[in-house]
Amino acid sequence: MAIQIPRGTQDILPGESEKWQYIERVAKDLCDLYQYQEIRTPIFESTELFEKGVGDTTDIVQKEMYTFTDKGNRSLTLRPEGTAAVVRSFVGNKMHGNAVQPVKLYYNGPMFRYERPQAGRFRQFVQFGVEALGSSDPAIDAEVISLAMNIYKKVGLKNTKLIINSLGDKESRTKHREALIKHFEPRIGEFCSNCKSRLERNPLRILDCKEDRDHELMETAPAIIDYLNEESLDYFKKVTSYLDEIGIAYTVDPNLVRGLDYYNHTAFEIMLDSEGFGAITTLCGGGRYNGLVQEIGGPETPGIGFAFSIERLLSALEAEKIELPIEKKVDCFIVSLGEAAQDYSVKLVNDLRLNGISAEKDYSGRKAKGQFKAADRVHAKYVAVLGEDELNNNQIALKDMETGEQQTIALPELVTVLQSKLGGN
Amino acid sequence: MAIQIPRGTQDILPGESEKWQYIERVAKDLCDLYQYQEIRTPIFESTELFEKGVGDTTDIVQKEMYTFTDKGNRSLTLRPEGTAAVVRSFVGNKMHGNAVQPVKLYYNGPMFRYERPQAGRFRQFVQFGVEALGSSDPAIDAEVISLAMNIYKKVGLKNTKLIINSLGDKESRTKHREALIKHFEPRIGEFCSNCKSRLERNPLRILDCKEDRDHELMETAPAIIDYLNEESLDYFKKVTSYLDEIGIAYTVDPNLVRGLDYYNHTAFEIMLDSEGFGAITTLCGGGRYNGLVQEIGGPETPGIGFAFSIERLLSALEAEKIELPIEKKVDCFIVSLGEAAQDYSVKLVNDLRLNGISAEKDYSGRKAKGQFKAADRVHAKYVAVLGEDELNNNQIALKDMETGEQQTIALPELVTVLQSKLGGN
Repeated sequence: MAIQIPRGTQDILPGESEKWQYIERVAKDLCDLYQYQEIRTPIFESTELFEKGVGDTTDIVQKEMYTFTDKGNRSLTLRPEGTAAVVRSFVGNKMHGNAVQPVKLYYNGPMFRYERPQAGRFRQFVQFGVEALGSSDPAIDAEVISLAMNIYKKVGLKNTKLIINSLGDKESRTKHREALIKHFEPRIGEFCSNCKSRLERNPLRILDCKEDRDHELMETAPAIIDYLNEESLDYFKKVTSYLDEIGIAYTVDPNLVRGLDYYNHTAFEIMLDSEGFGAITTLCGGGRYNGLVQEIGGPETPGIGFAFSIERLLSALEAEKIELPIEKKVDCFIVSLGEAAQDYSVKLVNDLRLNGISAEKDYSGRKAKGQFKAADRVHAKYVAVLGEDELNNNQIALKDMETGEQQTIALPELVTVLQSKLGGN
Repeated sequence: MAIQIPRGTQDILPGESEKWQYIERVAKDLCDLYQYQEIRTPIFESTELFEKGVGDTTDIVQKEMYTFTDKGNRSLTLRPEGTAAVVRSFVGNKMHGNAVQPVKLYYNGPMFRYERPQAGRFRQFVQFGVEALGSSDPAIDAEVISLAMNIYKKVGLKNTKLIINSLGDKESRTKHREALIKHFEPRIGEFCSNCKSRLERNPLRILDCKEDRDHELMETAPAIIDYLNEESLDYFKKVTSYLDEIGIAYTVDPNLVRGLDYYNHTAFEIMLDSEGFGAITTLCGGGRYNGLVQEIGGPETPGIGFAFSIERLLSALEAEKIELPIEKKVDCFIVSLGEAAQDYSVKLVNDLRLNGISAEKDYSGRKAKGQFKAADRVHAKYVAVLGEDELNNNQIALKDMETGEQQTIALPELVTVLQSKLGGN
């Protein structure tokens, strides 16, 4: 009986993995241009980190974490998201003391949430994200948003839509919180039990509730944007004016909120507005979290970042019927006839590869016809045929599979001839 | 109190992460040339997979696995190595039916073993590996070895040493096994308790024992190579003759063994022979495992592969004092003076980046001097200075930081001027 892959996970096989590589390359190249550098944190962290850094009132921490005890009796958790660990590393490595400030980081790796698997939602999924730590310049908010938008643009997505809002500073949030409690309290009995417990702990999260989303009080709830103090409003105006300046369109959505205390000022999401993409339309979420570094035990440090799932980006590409420009050809396939030629072909492919030419041969004892078929299957640009006669004459026959053109060349010249023919690539 | 990183794990920070990217790129590019394609399997698998695929008599399975129960009561294990999961995927996805055979795969990702952390040994470490499934042509053994050797060569390692041996086929191994039992049985009382239990289950693993390595019976133990039948010996000769043909030096070491039943024929290790590398000298291990696919529930399928740890490769590079060719410069740093210029610099860096020029600006409200210092710190090739005068005249001052040369250019031409100056890169 074959052993199954764990539920909610997937293998990424050849044919698909090239798409992942392509997307990761686009994102990495853009991060290079924007001067974000890669950080890699462990797959698991102490459970406490996520309780503090993601928040113990969230669904993630309450229901969805892969938590276990290691042989040393530590409570560890497979990371459900990327920001908490990056901030843990920022604090532990004292990056607030780095010579280059702000500290601009990106990460790319698997995250884990024990959710009900469904189309496009996995228990292991890959997030690409960035964090800029150490600046509260609204220009960096615009930069982070621009980077996210440009990744989508560069891979070819057309119908992305940027939604933005401000959660204001602490003062603004406190005032808004009071207004929310005042708004919901008299009729909280009509809400679900989750919302009831949210009322005092975190009333902002009531607005996120999927169960009560149609309740009439939702639409009339006080919007944070009306509670922003002058400083917060100025900050938000500066962010949007930068977006205008660099030509990024956006829609202000006063309902876009983040439930956790250390989120503030800019919050944004990038949605896909394409038909056929189904219910899940958020591709990317991000925002400012000026309170998080302190929460994790570091000095007061502003921060902003975003994260997106590569699985969802791939679904979006599919919905927009976008083919990534991936070439899967082998430069040269060696067809060898007879034992001596077969032996010699081992050296030939090796020579080609060491000279930067992708090369393949038969490893299954196929006859000539089968080898030509194999060359076709891997879309060989050239097929080089080595029979006993050729080998004895120190020659090899070379066929251009696109034009059908054939020529016989000196065996020692195969590498240089192919290099000049392939030079255009 | 700051939250700590889990014991035995590490963050890979900017400055280090570029080295990882470089090594992964070298390995990936070589895999492209050799026509190996990437596969990504989940971080965890059902525990049963490793019990079967790694072997329940191994230290890995008995002592070192991160095993836990998920919320659905499944026993899952963080993968301790890569081959078992690749084979699980090969079987589950019926890759033995793929049109292109053999199936040539590579993987790169974190693995987990609960070991005592020490210099260069982590509980989470990254393995890069390849597997070629579906061919028992000795030419593929030589190809796999050549690929591993060339990765090390390409990153610049000089003192690698290839050790090779043959474990023969089933018949040869059975005969050798009998000889081993006969050899050790009369004096097994002098060995450790592990060896005692190995005698019947897996006598080959006695040769691996670290506790009893100096026992006199170790040196006189029958060598597998003397028990190879004709077919196995022919196979081995063919592999080594191919290695000769492609110019890869090797040493046959009759003591190089693999304890598990499904390993057979070619076994190899790549060692580092550099001074100062300390006790751990094996960089890479690999071999043929013609029985594994069947063990995991698939049809009888030959296979061969290797894996190496990137952490250990990095230590090897350090031991050989090799600097990887990593450039960390930013093309252009914008110094802006006055509020209007600062605002405009947001657009400028954005324009540069979207035109493929890596660019940076100040996000910390620094004065002119501080901005020039920041430009130095990121090793800017050019610094563009935008003051109020320049902005009013629609100009910008551009300084080549290498030559010190300065010029004033029209503001809208910054992108094209820099593109032509940087063209040589």
